[in-house]
Amino acid sequence: MNEYLELTLDLIGTFVFALTGALVAVRNRLDIFGTLVLACATGLGGGMVRDVLLGDVPPAGLTDWRYLLAATLAGVATFYWHRLVARWENIILTLDAAGLALFCVTGAVLASEAGLGIVPSALLGMISGIGGGMIRDILANRVPVVLEAGTGWYAVPALAGAALAAIGNQYEWPTVLVLVPGMVVCFGWRVVAMRRGWAPMPARGL
Amino acid sequence: MNEYLELTLDLIGTFVFALTGALVAVRNRLDIFGTLVLACATGLGGGMVRDVLLGDVPPAGLTDWRYLLAATLAGVATFYWHRLVARWENIILTLDAAGLALFCVTGAVLASEAGLGIVPSALLGMISGIGGGMIRDILANRVPVVLEAGTGWYAVPALAGAALAAIGNQYEWPTVLVLVPGMVVCFGWRVVAMRRGWAPMPARGL
Amino acid sequence: MNEYLELTLDLIGTFVFALTGALVAVRNRLDIFGTLVLACATGLGGGMVRDVLLGDVPPAGLTDWRYLLAATLAGVATFYWHRLVARWENIILTLDAAGLALFCVTGAVLASEAGLGIVPSALLGMISGIGGGMIRDILANRVPVVLEAGTGWYAVPALAGAALAAIGNQYEWPTVLVLVPGMVVCFGWRVVAMRRGWAPMPARGL
Repeated sequence: MNEYLELTLDLIGTFVFALTGALVAVRNRLDIFGTLVLACATGLGGGMVRDVLLGDVPPAGLTDWRYLLAATLAGVATFYWHRLVARWENIILTLDAAGLALFCVTGAVLASEAGLGIVPSALLGMISGIGGGMIRDILANRVPVVLEAGTGWYAVPALAGAALAAIGNQYEWPTVLVLVPGMVVCFGWRVVAMRRGWAPMPARGL
Repeated sequence: MNEYLELTLDLIGTFVFALTGALVAVRNRLDIFGTLVLACATGLGGGMVRDVLLGDVPPAGLTDWRYLLAATLAGVATFYWHRLVARWENIILTLDAAGLALFCVTGAVLASEAGLGIVPSALLGMISGIGGGMIRDILANRVPVVLEAGTGWYAVPALAGAALAAIGNQYEWPTVLVLVPGMVVCFGWRVVAMRRGWAPMPARGL
Repeated sequence: MNEYLELTLDLIGTFVFALTGALVAVRNRLDIFGTLVLACATGLGGGMVRDVLLGDVPPAGLTDWRYLLAATLAGVATFYWHRLVARWENIILTLDAAGLALFCVTGAVLASEAGLGIVPSALLGMISGIGGGMIRDILANRVPVVLEAGTGWYAVPALAGAALAAIGNQYEWPTVLVLVPGMVVCFGWRVVAMRRGWAPMPARGL
């Protein structure tokens, strides 16, 4: 896969995920540095977990300053203009869906290129997508939103998008066919589910 | 150690740990996918932490579909028949003790076969045994039950069982002597302590 | 860097961090074994995260019994003499600042010696310093104190100290110049900020 394309997609995903982490930090009344730590943990965490599980250490989130810069910028912007950012919350939820779509696909492609099969690559793509947000919620001392019933479809669109990318990469489809269908499925499913309030149900008879 | 025997023991442990994770998920009113994520994190988490610490990446919990299948089956079964599973809670606590016994012994043997000494192997066996449940409780936003005073003996039986297995493997005892004493000690200690309400005490004079 | 000096600094840091973990455990009414688990997770956690991110596995916190002994001693001492330890809380906060200063500098040096550049080494030093306390707080089911606005300066002094050590090691300064300025800056900044109540502020206009 084209290296610059992958880097660009990853950086955008890092930035929007870091925005969601910084918003949680500002609402919890953390100071600027706590906000930056939470923004970086959210933006870089999913990719770092992916890299550790692939044995690709030290992870790029630590060694490549561009990832760090993207997450830091998101943290600073949110801290100083949080009212503006919060007003954009619908935009942010949409961007978060875009970040999910980007990370699940790039994570699956990286895993597939490291020699993993389709199922492990799809799982690792999903972990890349949902990992940063889980770390954010653990640090903010709450149940990860990806797990909660009211969140709507989140992990499953990521898994579906990652699976499409893993299949495409395995069978050496052209780059655009590896990336686009997975992103469209993940992003579209997540956004339509949010808009319409579609959500899977908790267990019956509790 | 016989590869198939080890796989079988590991799969049973994964299944019963995943059951406990799925029960926590159903009680927290997570939907089916949140339940599956929590079941998999509980069933596979301890082994994945062990593999990452041993440098054995990507971990088998990700690349070997049988682990994933065991955890997923446990999650689905719990979600749809949770009243049945909850009625079996005593059975599940007993199975959890069995999972603990299986994981602490197989974790210690894996570490020992990777060249670690007795003490590190015993520790890594204990981490394999208690790690999945700790991840479950962190995700469910509660203090890990293994840490709480009311849980009774949990980490210590795991450490004792892992130590026996690590010693046996170090001195190249026959497989049955490596596996059985550690499992019996861990399982027996845990189950008897549960039945009789034996538990270590918190610090005095608080 | 001199190996024994580094080990000694690391062991002292492990001991004082483990003290803070054990104090949290005793206050949460954990029993002796839960206290030991929390003491070890706090004392060894930051270094283990650092080693995993550097690909230096199995981590020394697991394979070198001296680290384990230091953390265990701190746990046992706190459990049995917690009133004494709690009365020394100001001393402990000062020791915690010393542990932070030791770990951020040794972590940065280890990363730098593994071939990382200045920025990644400084980050990894900071992670080594703040990681154990974050693990402690996650296990105790609270927001990590390093993130909270009331804590005062914590992550930034660690990053500054780590950066000085990373720069010194990169340019092959003499050992004393690699270690001392970073430790002094981190320790002094943290301690003076605590004494005077200096702290960065949360975002305005919430």
